[in-house]
Amino acid sequence: MLKLRMLVTAIAMAGSFSVMAADSLPTTAPAPADNPTTPEKVALGKMLYHDPRLSSTGTVSCASCHNTMLGGEDNRPNSMGVNGQTGGRSAPTVWNAAFNKVQFWDGRAASLEEQAAGPVTNPIEMGMKSWDDVVARLKTIKGYRQAFELAFGSDHEAITKDNATKAIAAYERTLITPNSAYDKYVEGDKDAMTEQQIRGMNKAVELGCTSCHSGPAFNGPGAFQKFPVHSNGYFEAQYHFNKDKGLAEVTKKESDEHMFKVPTLRNIALTAPYMHNGSVKTLDKAVKLMAKLQLNKDLSDEDTADIVAFLNALTGEFPKQTMPELPGTPGSTFN
Amino acid sequence: MLKLRMLVTAIAMAGSFSVMAADSLPTTAPAPADNPTTPEKVALGKMLYHDPRLSSTGTVSCASCHNTMLGGEDNRPNSMGVNGQTGGRSAPTVWNAAFNKVQFWDGRAASLEEQAAGPVTNPIEMGMKSWDDVVARLKTIKGYRQAFELAFGSDHEAITKDNATKAIAAYERTLITPNSAYDKYVEGDKDAMTEQQIRGMNKAVELGCTSCHSGPAFNGPGAFQKFPVHSNGYFEAQYHFNKDKGLAEVTKKESDEHMFKVPTLRNIALTAPYMHNGSVKTLDKAVKLMAKLQLNKDLSDEDTADIVAFLNALTGEFPKQTMPELPGTPGSTFN
Repeated sequence: MLKLRMLVTAIAMAGSFSVMAADSLPTTAPAPADNPTTPEKVALGKMLYHDPRLSSTGTVSCASCHNTMLGGEDNRPNSMGVNGQTGGRSAPTVWNAAFNKVQFWDGRAASLEEQAAGPVTNPIEMGMKSWDDVVARLKTIKGYRQAFELAFGSDHEAITKDNATKAIAAYERTLITPNSAYDKYVEGDKDAMTEQQIRGMNKAVELGCTSCHSGPAFNGPGAFQKFPVHSNGYFEAQYHFNKDKGLAEVTKKESDEHMFKVPTLRNIALTAPYMHNGSVKTLDKAVKLMAKLQLNKDLSDEDTADIVAFLNALTGEFPKQTMPELPGTPGSTFN
Repeated sequence: MLKLRMLVTAIAMAGSFSVMAADSLPTTAPAPADNPTTPEKVALGKMLYHDPRLSSTGTVSCASCHNTMLGGEDNRPNSMGVNGQTGGRSAPTVWNAAFNKVQFWDGRAASLEEQAAGPVTNPIEMGMKSWDDVVARLKTIKGYRQAFELAFGSDHEAITKDNATKAIAAYERTLITPNSAYDKYVEGDKDAMTEQQIRGMNKAVELGCTSCHSGPAFNGPGAFQKFPVHSNGYFEAQYHFNKDKGLAEVTKKESDEHMFKVPTLRNIALTAPYMHNGSVKTLDKAVKLMAKLQLNKDLSDEDTADIVAFLNALTGEFPKQTMPELPGTPGSTFN
């Protein structure tokens, strides 16, 4: 595989298909030293990820907004948390989130583990009062005792916030969608992409899209970028992009204003609507707006269509998954 | 299997374990003549059942309230539909619903097909304006075109309300939980139930519980029963059982007042809270209340514990399921 990739890169450098970084998506994600991926953790993480009992009302699981049966999110501008509440940002996809350099739209979490802790106690998302309450609830569900001890041992109390978020992160590291048309193409199958998709790929490079969206997940080299770079009263009135200050909402630093995580472009055709606030309904509109706001370029309809065709080549293969069987506790209820 | 069952019944009639109808749960459910179960329908039905895009907000699927990863419902007193709305009844379990004689708590639907049509356009459940809107939305999701035509052919328009509800019903007919301790016991494994569970089974028969809850699914012989039979101001003040007029809410007939579907007792230990309005949190309380309100008997704590132990013997084996991969449509969104 490595040899093939080097060969492809060599061909790319020789100019046969532009300067696009020719990396296909890895089929496994690196795990941090203190949370190696194990089948037991993945099994537990899958249960927790799909368990609505991690929310105050028992109705919202991680999967409610980051749906693993769909494109890893909910196709809504803003997700709907407990009691029908909505926030100001659009749910990012969980597929290939393992390859994000930072997590959340504002990049405030450095790891999947750190990210997983957030929504559970966010009052408008899963609405639990505290992780102590989550842990207390998990301890009432007998099947979780066994699953946590299988994953983390029984020398110490296994049901903890730290272990719950580690398990969820371990599961999320398995949510990878390889073998897109683009992956097949860069691995040597020149028929995998259509002529229009190849044209779109080259135009994306020429325009400068790949200065922020490159690498196997099309989300780097930098973790953050300012959005919008070229502000514009007309677009602001229509889409309210400037309202959300991004990372500065957390750090309160002026230098972080409007800095957002560079999102992956993998499976982007499946994750409408677009932008951090979900205000843009279609992919062609999103491509035109990004060209204008980030690169100050007006894209023709033809160029837009070509780039959209290329982005469709980034839809991967979704692994078959078994449904977790969530452990019940006889007689348990929510309120 | 039939021979074994006849043998077990003969033993039962000879008095060795009371007069409990000794039927184990069938492993397949009968389908109506106009909707034979096929793998293609089941596959489509599983997709539709788990697809939140069948709701106005894109957040509520059949599985949200009838969770197939759990005991087939949501462990809540009343389910939560779109925009955080709740109604007055508790979600019945979908597991073994194929063996219900009628559907919904008030029994207003004669079949799973008829039932499946209801919640989708209920304003406090899935909130779609009409099935025409549902069908129109399904038609925008390209993968559904293929799945409907595989299941129903392409001679006529395959994406219809009728076919959608048929597919959901076909899937639901596969949601059967055999091999409970009770099933093993009546099939001849005398060690499958504990002594307490056997005691509880016999007490349930002696008390009269089985006059309404008998047969393989413990939900007959009659489809309907009045609840409560013995009204009581104290309990009414506490649980508001009389507020809901059951079938009469639909038919407006006096003779239907407080008539409810007899629910299955299968997996009842997993489906707290109890009663049509979900007002009773624990199984022991539910057993005591049923004895008082239906049979006018005061149960001792010991008898209650024995019957609860028996009811725990009705928790079956949940079949392993694969997750459906819901078809996406590039660029689609909800509002």
